Amino acid sequence: MSDIHDSSRREFISTSALAGGSLLLGGSMNLFAATRSAENIKSRGYAAIDTSGALVPWDFERRPVGDDDVLIDIKYASICHSDIHQMKGHWGPQKYPQVPGHEIVGVVAAIGRNVTRFKVGDRAGVGCMVDSDPSCPSYRDGEEQYCASTVFTYGYPQPSSPTGISQGGYSTNIVVNEHFVVHIPGHISFQEAAPLLCAGITTYSPLMRFNLEAGDKVGVAGIGGLGHMAVKIAVSKGAEVYAFTTSPEKVPDILAFGAKEAIVVDDLEKLAPLAGQLDYMISTIPVQFDVAAYASVVKPYGTFTQVGMPERFEVTLSAIGLAANRVNFNASLIGGMKETQEVVDYCADNRVLPKIQVIRAEQINDAWTSVVDKKARYRYVIDAATF
Amino acid sequence: MSDIHDSSRREFISTSALAGGSLLLGGSMNLFAATRSAENIKSRGYAAIDTSGALVPWDFERRPVGDDDVLIDIKYASICHSDIHQMKGHWGPQKYPQVPGHEIVGVVAAIGRNVTRFKVGDRAGVGCMVDSDPSCPSYRDGEEQYCASTVFTYGYPQPSSPTGISQGGYSTNIVVNEHFVVHIPGHISFQEAAPLLCAGITTYSPLMRFNLEAGDKVGVAGIGGLGHMAVKIAVSKGAEVYAFTTSPEKVPDILAFGAKEAIVVDDLEKLAPLAGQLDYMISTIPVQFDVAAYASVVKPYGTFTQVGMPERFEVTLSAIGLAANRVNFNASLIGGMKETQEVVDYCADNRVLPKIQVIRAEQINDAWTSVVDKKARYRYVIDAATF
Repeated sequence: MSDIHDSSRREFISTSALAGGSLLLGGSMNLFAATRSAENIKSRGYAAIDTSGALVPWDFERRPVGDDDVLIDIKYASICHSDIHQMKGHWGPQKYPQVPGHEIVGVVAAIGRNVTRFKVGDRAGVGCMVDSDPSCPSYRDGEEQYCASTVFTYGYPQPSSPTGISQGGYSTNIVVNEHFVVHIPGHISFQEAAPLLCAGITTYSPLMRFNLEAGDKVGVAGIGGLGHMAVKIAVSKGAEVYAFTTSPEKVPDILAFGAKEAIVVDDLEKLAPLAGQLDYMISTIPVQFDVAAYASVVKPYGTFTQVGMPERFEVTLSAIGLAANRVNFNASLIGGMKETQEVVDYCADNRVLPKIQVIRAEQINDAWTSVVDKKARYRYVIDAATF
Repeated sequence: MSDIHDSSRREFISTSALAGGSLLLGGSMNLFAATRSAENIKSRGYAAIDTSGALVPWDFERRPVGDDDVLIDIKYASICHSDIHQMKGHWGPQKYPQVPGHEIVGVVAAIGRNVTRFKVGDRAGVGCMVDSDPSCPSYRDGEEQYCASTVFTYGYPQPSSPTGISQGGYSTNIVVNEHFVVHIPGHISFQEAAPLLCAGITTYSPLMRFNLEAGDKVGVAGIGGLGHMAVKIAVSKGAEVYAFTTSPEKVPDILAFGAKEAIVVDDLEKLAPLAGQLDYMISTIPVQFDVAAYASVVKPYGTFTQVGMPERFEVTLSAIGLAANRVNFNASLIGGMKETQEVVDYCADNRVLPKIQVIRAEQINDAWTSVVDKKARYRYVIDAATF
């Protein structure tokens, strides 16, 4: 993919002096022209340099804006537990320095010649993906996340990147193929939109696939960044929501989010009264846990979806426990770009907003500790002006 | 349950002298009378006495025939990998001596006063369950295996048993509540009927739940006792069957069973050519394996059913791998009594028969070693006359 971009970009650059007259894009011409060079784009962010989980300020470069690319001046980026797992090497060895962050919002600062969906000044968001292969069947089906060639937002090999890997959103700007950019409507704040790009889509997508209907009894296990969005989205769709948490102090929030019941699972026995009661359950628990015990609250032949990704991505489950529960277990990974736009629009229109805490760049390391310690309430959003 | 049996039996015995005249059951009167006493029934079998996996001959007693019970003179019992797992303590600590065996066929030798579905001399079979609670919702739904109170055929607490636990079919006889006894039609041999009671129902039930249709592409992973029945049942229903084995020497058998293709998975890469091709997959693999790798051959949003039960019943799977495959994973446990009768009748009527090797009691220990070493072809059936 990147090779193709590179060659088409080079070709464009070499011919743009002649074709320049046809490239007028109204008021954006100056900015467009300013970035239409083969110059790398300077960026500044916070990067992991090892598996310690501590980030440090880092100056690096992005690729120049290609024909299909959008340059976004980042306004906010929020913190996902996945950022921590990946930087610490829980999902496999990493290349460092690496800038995490895949919940990114900002303003379009420049566009490539082929870009049609964005203009300079547009409010824009980037989630977990930044590139893929348009000929992949899943891409054509609007499920780009399942293409083998998909480049995820940070840590993936990306020859077009000066650092060799994709670099994420804990930074001042990002260059992304326009297909992987969504519009952020004017009636939602940047701060509140950021978490929708991963936490929102990751919970919205399986809930929509389940064909959630008003009155359905929906369980949500793990009430952190993803879980609290799952509760809010399910409530907004009319579901009767049962939230399972290990943090008793979250109960008032959970009820305020609209859940019918908050169950503090300090002992798996607490699940027993709901055995076989729920139509559907989504787990955002990002560590190993007793899947069959949690699945026991779902009706026989119901569905249990795992979206949290533990260390090594491994979930160990009791086959006999799962058999006894007669539950279909599946796992789900974010959602496609079309559906990502859909969730952003849906949440903006219906005021389904994450509960956030805005932090400065120098607070990131403390915030990560809080996320691991289950102290986040419920999404830390980094003000990119502080990088 | 057993307390109820005991009291009603005692009551019956105390009144039977007076009521005896009304208890005539034709030619079975003598046998009936002979066993209608509070005397325990002598049995002889092979039992595990520790976790070594070695069985020894053992004389023990069964409970007297209760009002709802059937006494079966066992003709054959076949060997299931579950027998080995449980006796070795792989699924938790066991009480010993314990007689394994839950694929049991024989002839009815006596019946209790309330028994209506069987008469002395009937051909009868017993599978994985011997008692439960008729008031349990799953019992009423014909899925007795999911009742919390179900007594499985061996090693379960059973106060009515003189040994305190249920004792299985590697023995000369068994006393079972009639609800848990199926008829063995006259047009199938005892030897070939025995494996249907577990291997047959365990694979038939999920295949039927999938609503298998002619032309469907069905995968079967693990071609042992269960797997070879899954292949044969799916083939008999018109499916195009892909069999996955780690034993290249089984390929000719697999093709003879009617499979379209036998894939020798000596490397997970061998699964790649079938990625996303199958409508459904059933795994009988009774050890830990890479679930997501095998599930990758199923179409997105298809179903993968695990029926093999590894040590500690644990299956570890890659949540991200499963997400990437978009597969519904479920586990299934045997099947209910109604469906157990159905699979026996179906296999008898359609000549869907297990490939068996009849052995003598003293060959059991060698046979177990062969099962663990994947050398069984494909079900060992013990001649109960040799106990």
